[in-house]
Amino acid sequence: MQVGDAPHRSIWLDSDDRVCIIDQTRLPHVFETCVLATCEAAVVAIRSMQVRGAPLIGVTAAYGVALAMRADSSDAALVAACKMLLATRPTAVNLRFALDEMRSRLLPLSEALRERAAFERAGELADDDRILCRAIGEHGALLIEKLAQSPTRRSKGEPVQILTHCNAGWLATVDYGTALAPVYVAHDRGIPLHVWVDETRPRNQGAGLTAWELGQRGVPHTVVADNAGGHLMQRGEVDLCITGSDRVSAGGDVCNKIGTYLKALAAVDNDVPFYVAFPYSTIDWDLTSGAAIPIEERDPEEVASIEGRNAAGEVVRVRLLPDGSQARNPAFDVTPHHLITGFITERGLCEASAEGLLGLYTERRSGSA
Amino acid sequence: MQVGDAPHRSIWLDSDDRVCIIDQTRLPHVFETCVLATCEAAVVAIRSMQVRGAPLIGVTAAYGVALAMRADSSDAALVAACKMLLATRPTAVNLRFALDEMRSRLLPLSEALRERAAFERAGELADDDRILCRAIGEHGALLIEKLAQSPTRRSKGEPVQILTHCNAGWLATVDYGTALAPVYVAHDRGIPLHVWVDETRPRNQGAGLTAWELGQRGVPHTVVADNAGGHLMQRGEVDLCITGSDRVSAGGDVCNKIGTYLKALAAVDNDVPFYVAFPYSTIDWDLTSGAAIPIEERDPEEVASIEGRNAAGEVVRVRLLPDGSQARNPAFDVTPHHLITGFITERGLCEASAEGLLGLYTERRSGSA
Repeated sequence: MQVGDAPHRSIWLDSDDRVCIIDQTRLPHVFETCVLATCEAAVVAIRSMQVRGAPLIGVTAAYGVALAMRADSSDAALVAACKMLLATRPTAVNLRFALDEMRSRLLPLSEALRERAAFERAGELADDDRILCRAIGEHGALLIEKLAQSPTRRSKGEPVQILTHCNAGWLATVDYGTALAPVYVAHDRGIPLHVWVDETRPRNQGAGLTAWELGQRGVPHTVVADNAGGHLMQRGEVDLCITGSDRVSAGGDVCNKIGTYLKALAAVDNDVPFYVAFPYSTIDWDLTSGAAIPIEERDPEEVASIEGRNAAGEVVRVRLLPDGSQARNPAFDVTPHHLITGFITERGLCEASAEGLLGLYTERRSGSA
Repeated sequence: MQVGDAPHRSIWLDSDDRVCIIDQTRLPHVFETCVLATCEAAVVAIRSMQVRGAPLIGVTAAYGVALAMRADSSDAALVAACKMLLATRPTAVNLRFALDEMRSRLLPLSEALRERAAFERAGELADDDRILCRAIGEHGALLIEKLAQSPTRRSKGEPVQILTHCNAGWLATVDYGTALAPVYVAHDRGIPLHVWVDETRPRNQGAGLTAWELGQRGVPHTVVADNAGGHLMQRGEVDLCITGSDRVSAGGDVCNKIGTYLKALAAVDNDVPFYVAFPYSTIDWDLTSGAAIPIEERDPEEVASIEGRNAAGEVVRVRLLPDGSQARNPAFDVTPHHLITGFITERGLCEASAEGLLGLYTERRSGSA
């Protein structure tokens, strides 16, 4: 997508073949890129959320393996790198997917070939992600287009009102995004739309990243407190919800940023379609139920304090809680499939169910593997 | 209740008969009291949320009328004061209730008697509020006690887990609180309990006021992002939700701080009892449906920026949004009565319905008025 007028990805190789990222912990106040020189740097970047979003975590981990191979291409180094990277964050399954891809590509090769092959494979995964997200955007845009043309709309030309939670835009992937890809494609086609951006406490990926992304692209949007979405739906101010996902069970349950479940409940209660957008690498075929997905508990300090820009323009951290009060910080929740209207994947739309997923990914039907 | 070791109310007359309040916009970082010298000062205090919470808004408005009478006890001044105070905030019905009480008490009196009578009546309303809240606490504590003794509890002596949204504690009333009154009574009786405190963006009345109140009283509590409550309920970590209300329709719909509706949906989805605590002055007998309750839209700046304590201990405001991004800030939402398990009032518990309310307030039955 773009930063200012320049096209941009969230992870890329520079002219010296160095792995570069946008430091997302500095957004929206400071736009800063940095170089990941080692596998350890990739580990730190994922854990500290300089990069985040399930697809981008996966691609960053793939580059992390490549960086490890640059230093030491032995079997032991490969296994150690994968283990270290897998331990960074427990919930997003794209991480495991990317590491499995890297290991299975590299292990059969001689050590001399591994570094080059690793960078090639990581690059392919990055390019694939871009193509997958673009396809998600195309499929999802049709949904938005249909809503724009719906005869029940209050008036012609009125924007389609889309609510999203957290950031599942191009910053969460390599490019385009998952939940926001349909928004970008529809916006580029001139379909009038407006995005309600959930702030997404405690890390404010909505207020900080989604609002920033949409602003850079010129997409009309308004930030609301996470508390507001239900009220907006009750008052008929939301036509469609779209979120991303960190892991989708084979049964169609969706693990995503904490608070997603509450919005899905409100969507059902108000007959607002609730879609989840993701590529195939987000599906965990080994899990039938979402209840088994491990939920990361993050540092309570993320709830107890917050970063923002002070009057002097400096980014500072301020404490919100009284002394002596503690916080807890579960980072994800699971939305049961029956609350979800449908999925938007690179292969098209489907029902949020085992049957729906198998209808798109027929190669996963038992007997066909 | 208490600040440090000293007993305290949220509004009081000092030894010089001056109306004093706690400046709640400075909590939890600074404890500061101030004097309301004029009716205009009361208007500013309500509008700026130095005082907030439906019952406390009502009592502050009553004192605002008394202050107006001190300056000018004419009919015109009385009408003007009531009009000015009524316009401060549109949602809480306790405001209208208190002003109606003051007007009907004062209008029949000669001007010479009005100042004294106004302070007397405001004082009665404050004392009444304290008694009402204490009664709410007694009735609600039985509910907590029952849960503590329930044979289905995981283990004996394990704390009852109570989730609350916003601040409906003693800071929102004159003393004790509405939603928190049962918590204080149960805690004082030695019933083990723990409160999940919703942060309550955008103004953080949970993280700032509820956590502070509970901390001053020594009640175990943990602050969570507003997004977390659904997940906690899914995982069986909430035994009971209690909130306050700004206006309850005669049909039992509850208007309360934005986000309450989302928690009620999650409570229903997870079979967690969801109670709303309020005194009779919160009931709007003229409204059948909650959909007709006016929802205050507050300054979007409350979403765009936030106050906290920096490393030097100073309270500073920091901006959260990127330049160019806008926000919207509806302050309340309406929870339909069918999502609510029951009400806790000064007269006891009842169903969240017209029948339930009329069962407690029999004098409101048509024909009995």
